[in-house]
Amino acid sequence: MLDAVRAELAEHGYDGLTVDAVAARAGVHRTTVYRRWGDVGGLLADVYDAAGDDGWEAPDTGSLRGDLAALNHEIQAAMSARPPVMEALIAASFRSPAAAEAQRRLWEDRYTRCEVIVERAVRRGELPPGTDARRLLVTATAPVYHHLVLLRTPPDPALPDAAADAAVLAATAGAFAGPPPA
Amino acid sequence: MLDAVRAELAEHGYDGLTVDAVAARAGVHRTTVYRRWGDVGGLLADVYDAAGDDGWEAPDTGSLRGDLAALNHEIQAAMSARPPVMEALIAASFRSPAAAEAQRRLWEDRYTRCEVIVERAVRRGELPPGTDARRLLVTATAPVYHHLVLLRTPPDPALPDAAADAAVLAATAGAFAGPPPA
Repeated sequence: MLDAVRAELAEHGYDGLTVDAVAARAGVHRTTVYRRWGDVGGLLADVYDAAGDDGWEAPDTGSLRGDLAALNHEIQAAMSARPPVMEALIAASFRSPAAAEAQRRLWEDRYTRCEVIVERAVRRGELPPGTDARRLLVTATAPVYHHLVLLRTPPDPALPDAAADAAVLAATAGAFAGPPPA
Repeated sequence: MLDAVRAELAEHGYDGLTVDAVAARAGVHRTTVYRRWGDVGGLLADVYDAAGDDGWEAPDTGSLRGDLAALNHEIQAAMSARPPVMEALIAASFRSPAAAEAQRRLWEDRYTRCEVIVERAVRRGELPPGTDARRLLVTATAPVYHHLVLLRTPPDPALPDAAADAAVLAATAGAFAGPPPA
């Protein structure tokens, strides 16, 4: 069923996504879909939740800079993939509260799984103890999302590394250690 | 007419935005709207373009850190405003190519107008000459957008200053001077 949702999204985007089309593609009766998922938002929420169950682990390259750059390359590849399933999911999140909540859960889970990148860097002595992992991770990754999702610039092959470098320099200078500014 | 679009967006969001409702609210015949704007995407593109004609200037507080923090506070206030017109415009950009292109133009224009923040900081000796203004500005602002638009976390009053601080530390360490990494 979720494969059918992804395939419909890839072909028609969110605007072309209907419970009937998903049911037909999956070979399931439409009333079954309505009973179990309610509507398109419910189907999308399950797609998100399934994406979160994939056993994904943060990159482990041996250095903070390497881990953040690898993470950013993964993000850029996923956001630039064709058909644009990620983009369709993000678009859907603006229109379906269920999809928005599922997206929020997925991203929360992904950033939590990435915290080990910062923990390892602290253990290696690359970062000061007490570095706020979430703030560092958002600083490193946000420019990649910002360019692709909001600014709609073509993927810049230099950006994943450059954004990782900037975050490492900020973190090394203590930007994420200690309390945030009052 | 554009006031009518904004009011309809604020009340009903993009999904409730129709040419007929806009025409009725503006007291204009619907065929006039269709002839001049084509569709809802055309109306939204004009709203974006009008937003870009507002004579907006970047903050000038006397320091790089102050300018970036003031900019981030403006962004956070605009994105958190109720009714959520900015959020409705961003949602629309995923569905209307005309709105997406207008949004891209608006953001390009805003970042260009912000480049003076970096030029002034270089003149004051706060930053190395040759600092890439755009990369610095995106690094400073992207976390604010990322939290509000994609992660959907509630506005964090500490984030605008914290994101500005991190960008200043990275910039001072030379993150945006010289070519991006190969």
